[in-house]
Amino acid sequence: MDEYMQEILIKAQTLIEALPYIRDFTNKKIVIKYGGSAMLDSKLEESVIKDVALLKLIGMKPIIVHGGGKEISKWLGKIGKESQFVKGLRVTDAETMEVAEMVLNKVNKNLVQMIEQLGVKAAGICGKDGGTLRCTKKTVEGEDIGFVGNVEYVEETLIDSLIDNDFIPVIAPIGLGDDYQSYNINADEAASAVAKAIGAEKLAFLTDIEGVCMDPNDSKTLVSVLTLEKAKQMIDDGFISGGMLPKINNCIEAVENGVNRVHILDGRKEHCLLLEFFTKKGIGTAIIDDHRALYPHEEEELVK
Amino acid sequence: MDEYMQEILIKAQTLIEALPYIRDFTNKKIVIKYGGSAMLDSKLEESVIKDVALLKLIGMKPIIVHGGGKEISKWLGKIGKESQFVKGLRVTDAETMEVAEMVLNKVNKNLVQMIEQLGVKAAGICGKDGGTLRCTKKTVEGEDIGFVGNVEYVEETLIDSLIDNDFIPVIAPIGLGDDYQSYNINADEAASAVAKAIGAEKLAFLTDIEGVCMDPNDSKTLVSVLTLEKAKQMIDDGFISGGMLPKINNCIEAVENGVNRVHILDGRKEHCLLLEFFTKKGIGTAIIDDHRALYPHEEEELVK
Amino acid sequence: MDEYMQEILIKAQTLIEALPYIRDFTNKKIVIKYGGSAMLDSKLEESVIKDVALLKLIGMKPIIVHGGGKEISKWLGKIGKESQFVKGLRVTDAETMEVAEMVLNKVNKNLVQMIEQLGVKAAGICGKDGGTLRCTKKTVEGEDIGFVGNVEYVEETLIDSLIDNDFIPVIAPIGLGDDYQSYNINADEAASAVAKAIGAEKLAFLTDIEGVCMDPNDSKTLVSVLTLEKAKQMIDDGFISGGMLPKINNCIEAVENGVNRVHILDGRKEHCLLLEFFTKKGIGTAIIDDHRALYPHEEEELVK
Amino acid sequence: MDEYMQEILIKAQTLIEALPYIRDFTNKKIVIKYGGSAMLDSKLEESVIKDVALLKLIGMKPIIVHGGGKEISKWLGKIGKESQFVKGLRVTDAETMEVAEMVLNKVNKNLVQMIEQLGVKAAGICGKDGGTLRCTKKTVEGEDIGFVGNVEYVEETLIDSLIDNDFIPVIAPIGLGDDYQSYNINADEAASAVAKAIGAEKLAFLTDIEGVCMDPNDSKTLVSVLTLEKAKQMIDDGFISGGMLPKINNCIEAVENGVNRVHILDGRKEHCLLLEFFTKKGIGTAIIDDHRALYPHEEEELVK
Amino acid sequence: MDEYMQEILIKAQTLIEALPYIRDFTNKKIVIKYGGSAMLDSKLEESVIKDVALLKLIGMKPIIVHGGGKEISKWLGKIGKESQFVKGLRVTDAETMEVAEMVLNKVNKNLVQMIEQLGVKAAGICGKDGGTLRCTKKTVEGEDIGFVGNVEYVEETLIDSLIDNDFIPVIAPIGLGDDYQSYNINADEAASAVAKAIGAEKLAFLTDIEGVCMDPNDSKTLVSVLTLEKAKQMIDDGFISGGMLPKINNCIEAVENGVNRVHILDGRKEHCLLLEFFTKKGIGTAIIDDHRALYPHEEEELVK
Amino acid sequence: MDEYMQEILIKAQTLIEALPYIRDFTNKKIVIKYGGSAMLDSKLEESVIKDVALLKLIGMKPIIVHGGGKEISKWLGKIGKESQFVKGLRVTDAETMEVAEMVLNKVNKNLVQMIEQLGVKAAGICGKDGGTLRCTKKTVEGEDIGFVGNVEYVEETLIDSLIDNDFIPVIAPIGLGDDYQSYNINADEAASAVAKAIGAEKLAFLTDIEGVCMDPNDSKTLVSVLTLEKAKQMIDDGFISGGMLPKINNCIEAVENGVNRVHILDGRKEHCLLLEFFTKKGIGTAIIDDHRALYPHEEEELVK
Repeated sequence: MDEYMQEILIKAQTLIEALPYIRDFTNKKIVIKYGGSAMLDSKLEESVIKDVALLKLIGMKPIIVHGGGKEISKWLGKIGKESQFVKGLRVTDAETMEVAEMVLNKVNKNLVQMIEQLGVKAAGICGKDGGTLRCTKKTVEGEDIGFVGNVEYVEETLIDSLIDNDFIPVIAPIGLGDDYQSYNINADEAASAVAKAIGAEKLAFLTDIEGVCMDPNDSKTLVSVLTLEKAKQMIDDGFISGGMLPKINNCIEAVENGVNRVHILDGRKEHCLLLEFFTKKGIGTAIIDDHRALYPHEEEELVK
Repeated sequence: MDEYMQEILIKAQTLIEALPYIRDFTNKKIVIKYGGSAMLDSKLEESVIKDVALLKLIGMKPIIVHGGGKEISKWLGKIGKESQFVKGLRVTDAETMEVAEMVLNKVNKNLVQMIEQLGVKAAGICGKDGGTLRCTKKTVEGEDIGFVGNVEYVEETLIDSLIDNDFIPVIAPIGLGDDYQSYNINADEAASAVAKAIGAEKLAFLTDIEGVCMDPNDSKTLVSVLTLEKAKQMIDDGFISGGMLPKINNCIEAVENGVNRVHILDGRKEHCLLLEFFTKKGIGTAIIDDHRALYPHEEEELVK
Repeated sequence: MDEYMQEILIKAQTLIEALPYIRDFTNKKIVIKYGGSAMLDSKLEESVIKDVALLKLIGMKPIIVHGGGKEISKWLGKIGKESQFVKGLRVTDAETMEVAEMVLNKVNKNLVQMIEQLGVKAAGICGKDGGTLRCTKKTVEGEDIGFVGNVEYVEETLIDSLIDNDFIPVIAPIGLGDDYQSYNINADEAASAVAKAIGAEKLAFLTDIEGVCMDPNDSKTLVSVLTLEKAKQMIDDGFISGGMLPKINNCIEAVENGVNRVHILDGRKEHCLLLEFFTKKGIGTAIIDDHRALYPHEEEELVK
Repeated sequence: MDEYMQEILIKAQTLIEALPYIRDFTNKKIVIKYGGSAMLDSKLEESVIKDVALLKLIGMKPIIVHGGGKEISKWLGKIGKESQFVKGLRVTDAETMEVAEMVLNKVNKNLVQMIEQLGVKAAGICGKDGGTLRCTKKTVEGEDIGFVGNVEYVEETLIDSLIDNDFIPVIAPIGLGDDYQSYNINADEAASAVAKAIGAEKLAFLTDIEGVCMDPNDSKTLVSVLTLEKAKQMIDDGFISGGMLPKINNCIEAVENGVNRVHILDGRKEHCLLLEFFTKKGIGTAIIDDHRALYPHEEEELVK
Repeated sequence: MDEYMQEILIKAQTLIEALPYIRDFTNKKIVIKYGGSAMLDSKLEESVIKDVALLKLIGMKPIIVHGGGKEISKWLGKIGKESQFVKGLRVTDAETMEVAEMVLNKVNKNLVQMIEQLGVKAAGICGKDGGTLRCTKKTVEGEDIGFVGNVEYVEETLIDSLIDNDFIPVIAPIGLGDDYQSYNINADEAASAVAKAIGAEKLAFLTDIEGVCMDPNDSKTLVSVLTLEKAKQMIDDGFISGGMLPKINNCIEAVENGVNRVHILDGRKEHCLLLEFFTKKGIGTAIIDDHRALYPHEEEELVK
Repeated sequence: MDEYMQEILIKAQTLIEALPYIRDFTNKKIVIKYGGSAMLDSKLEESVIKDVALLKLIGMKPIIVHGGGKEISKWLGKIGKESQFVKGLRVTDAETMEVAEMVLNKVNKNLVQMIEQLGVKAAGICGKDGGTLRCTKKTVEGEDIGFVGNVEYVEETLIDSLIDNDFIPVIAPIGLGDDYQSYNINADEAASAVAKAIGAEKLAFLTDIEGVCMDPNDSKTLVSVLTLEKAKQMIDDGFISGGMLPKINNCIEAVENGVNRVHILDGRKEHCLLLEFFTKKGIGTAIIDDHRALYPHEEEELVK
């Protein structure tokens, strides 16, 4: 077979493979946690934003939850303040909170700006708008680390009304405490809470790793699909540990709360969202419940 | 680059290319004239029906208009009646009309059956149902050739209500005359009339040729996109002639009546509909108006 | 009283009698099984079609289910094939099924044509369209008689959407098996299944008898209204037997499944539908449940 | 033909005749001016109210406008006040107006009571409710006759909202002047004004005559249908004069303002409304515009 | 502080106090029993009607139920008939009923007239219209006192449809018995029954007393808010007795049936409705349930 | 009259005065430009936010557009950058813009936080969200002053969808240029542009002056209502000049573009919004068009 025909063949197969997913995801809410390297490299940033805009254009309902830790540290530096961490969490006094809020809102509006530039409507909010992210104070082993919050409740009204009016909500991880003060929230935790609250079909984490590998040092051992049972087994067996552990626990909890598939993707690969969502094999790791493993078209095999 | 990465690359490109088309065609009506070889080979038939079902599943509104000439001749033979033609049109006396109607309805219901088997809803009608195809008697150079009709008016109510209720309308080319008799209608003409009446976005003819070629004997000279102006020029210059001529004239008229793109496809190529609709180059010939040549995403280049 | 005044009196009484029925039936679904002599005589055919069209015009929702046995035999004869029957059921091999389908669809579209000619919208479907009549293979005392089906399920979506869009559905009794093959279905059984599925108010069988008579040979013994209890009693007592038996059992089952009144009418009497539906005495036999015997206006006697 | 069959025949014809009218009048507004003998005889009153209730039940929208002159005179007598008339109009001082209003409202609520008793919803209003009948003071040849009004404007909001909520509006002819005082209005004039304002299909006057006769002394010369042109001719030729003249002028004006048919009926005939509305010949006189003489079914003869 | 600033201060406080009530009452139904002195003095009448119109204008849904006893006695006198009472209830023979109905309807339409004059839509009905007030015959200690009724059932359809179409319903207390005769109903009882049936937020009685006072002779002992418990206690302790007793029992029953607050107001004070409804202290006595004592804004103290 | 009665009187008058305004403003959009002293004093801030929340609670649709100049200067100072101004406009280089954006978003979210704390829903956006404020680069007498923008177009979709979903939009004056960069916009100009675009009923500027005074040094010469004609005259006559001039020109332009009343209020007076909006005299200056000077209730004097 000549090269042209082979390309045509791959194209036809790609379409045949992708179309049923596109149908299954139409009008579905898809939460994307955006952070890490994919946020620092402007070319990768453009590729991610373009993918998200495409998802919107073909009828899905993407929601972005973003981080911004490195940028916060940079601005704290500018005003001569050092960043302090306890167990990976930023110690957040009132002034740090003020700076964090300013920086996260700036990052937030920049993402909005990029999406608008692609001709797609976006609106940037933080968890204080519409009382979206309500939280309580978090402590670390009894130690007070300031304005750091645990998400207690997600009020989805504002997110839903933005979605219903065709905007992509872009959410900065700042919460509102019972004392009506601002709290800093971990972006992974915020994304997961939002996904559960709005009944998202998918939750995708853009990370700096390829996914879950049997051997963390060999990307050829990447696992494409992981059931809850298997994931828990791997934790028990020690295959998943270190920084990976809280991330996977986050995924497990989201799936247990009704999110159909949670994806861990390598944000450093261009168009990773499209390749993961619209091909059978994907390019990262998908975590699924045992009993809801398949999409309708996979299950019914309507179109073989 | 290794083969796997190349495949990934083609996949990503295919998706990036296809998604904007998918957006542009959502909720759009697409008329497919189905006939010729693609109808006689059961594997091709399956490929066509599967493509149509997929179009429906991802949010488009396909309508099938089919022929059935060879099958009519076969059944006329069974009851000992010979088929007669004048200038390519079947001479249709009352008995022939009765047989034609029976055979076309049988073909019609078989297509419905195949689509239903794929889990997609379909409903088979002829031009008499709902008074859909109203026609007058056609004569050939003054000669009476019986119950052969010209479409005068398409009453779109029934087609629209089927579409609105999520059925794929499958239409047999039988019309209702002013005398409330049945008339035989050329399927190409019927498809074209329906496309114009319902404001179709696309009209695709599945044929036994590859498309329009500069040199009819060399498929490498296939023209992917043809503007009206160019098409008329090619007719004047004699590049288009013979059996191709009425077909192209049909296409030109459809475009002039508001159908955005008319496609001439080789029905013998598997998944020809998907490849033509969702790739930039396509695999057949698309006829377009000079001034409405591009789809929004092509024009605005929202997503580069 | 002079003749003119007497006529005026009958007219006034007829209207006073008819109007509450007209109110009670507004927007109600009425299934008419059309077959037998009323189908073979063109004057009777015209009278039936006109009545059905009138029902539609004044706000009811008629549905026609038709037969066509004699016509099938005629066409089988044309291609030199003899009709065979086992216990009154046509033995249906693949070729017979093909012919039956062609003939029934022709009959179907002719009825549509007649209704359209009266300015009323109609659409002809068979049980394969929209998967409307799903069936399993029927055997006769263990004997295989080919493609003859029992209705297992009626998918009412297509019928309902035609009704909602103001079409009279005209239904040919062809079903879709689990093997996605075509099956021949008894028209009485099809009509009854449709009436039950769509929640019809009435089901009327146009037959070649006057109704149920205490003495089958004396039309003066015609019973106007028969409760289920009485009908069953008459079966037990042997008053109902022979070809009448399955027909009455069919009626009983329909009433037991929620159809309010099932009528057995003499299709050979002109305007039998109007006279049965809109006069208190009617002209055939109505089978009703004991507990739902009366229409609101009969029960409440709002208008005396 | 035996008598039974003849009755059946008349019934079938009556239904065939009536059904298209019933269709044509569905959801149409029909104003009935109720007064004269039909109001004083309790059996006739019952027949009229029953007809009106039936019209409502089968989907029309009847509105009653009633008089009550004799009852007003009776009650004025009770309080020792004599009735005075100028050119047939009651001289209405403040006390007379107060009594007239009390009496008309009593008559009004009694009609409501009778309709409610038939299980049909009714609501009694006068022209002051919702500012329905706005009027100016009427003078007779310059002479002041007190609170007697000309209808200047009909505010249809209240009538329409009662109709939309399934009530039969029963209207007493009392108006609201620019000075926000009560005015006595002629019931024929009020009925005509209401019919024009709400776009009534029909306006029927229940009177004490049979209709328009060529020879007023010979009821056999009754004219069933009268075009505007003919009616005006008859006035010019002196066939219509005396008390008939203002009534016919009222009818002419209503037709000229868009009411399709105005009927003059003999309220002393039982069920006169049904017989006039639902038979071709009717029993009174219908006044129609030349150009809108026929109902759709009469014109198109869809159902012959 | 100078006088101007003091006035400004009171104004600001009045608004701050009133606005949350206005919000809480928006779209709420408020029944006003109108009778007594406030009905006989034309200046007070104007003040009451203006208040009711204002309530409507700012988005509430007032309903008036009125009395008319003194006017009935006056007209009975005019026709030489004496009024008789048993235990405060008018003995109502057929003629008395006829007069009562006429007079109440006259009063009713006069109120409508006054509201219309303020540019607000009103419609006057009695309990017979739409079968609104259905009643049974009332006897007094076994004694027959004629057409006097107990409300058994309120059919709210007509009231609701008037409200939904932006009319203020004005209701005369005449009921429809099971015998479809007219019955005289106590206006307090009618108002209470209507308030319960339509789910009114408030029921206000305009009376000739200031409210409930600890010492009936000292208006300074007026109780602003009375819980059910306290009201019952006061009855037990004899503080409430005489003519006040049935009125308070009426209030208690209304609150127990879901009316949020029942107010007893002095109709002789101008704008008593506005001052009672929109100030915290009010000017009369409000009876409330213990558990639903506070409006949302009082409870939540959203706005301090 | 004793003091209590006088207070009651003022309360009744205040309500009578206020209610028609409340009706007229229901569902109307009211833009409030919030800045200056009222923003720096926390007690005043609370009073303003409470007034805005009340407006929302009683059915109006307030929108806040805020400034934040002093806060920006403060933060520029923190990072060691001096503020520069040309003709009162801040010279805005890239770093200044970055800081301005961060600070304005912080102010924005704080306002949201305060409103949420009162139990009212709010959402903070800037002009980049939803492409709400599109602008071009502003120059001052040809001099480039950096990222300072003129509003060219207001895309109201996002504002409208927030309002429709019951949020108070809080808008930071940052715009999106044609180059998709952020631009600093004057808050007065932004408020005015928004008011015009969304068809606001009112636009209120909270300032540090009492309003327009004939003698700027004597607050007793305050003008309550100013027609366009009068305002222009005062400019011509030199009564309005200096910093007041651009503000008044802004008001004039807004009125000329369809905003019904533009108010200049002294933000230092507590509850200035309520007193201005709901009393006839108000406490600041209202600018109105000559021909649309009065609200319906003022004009028609429905309620005298």
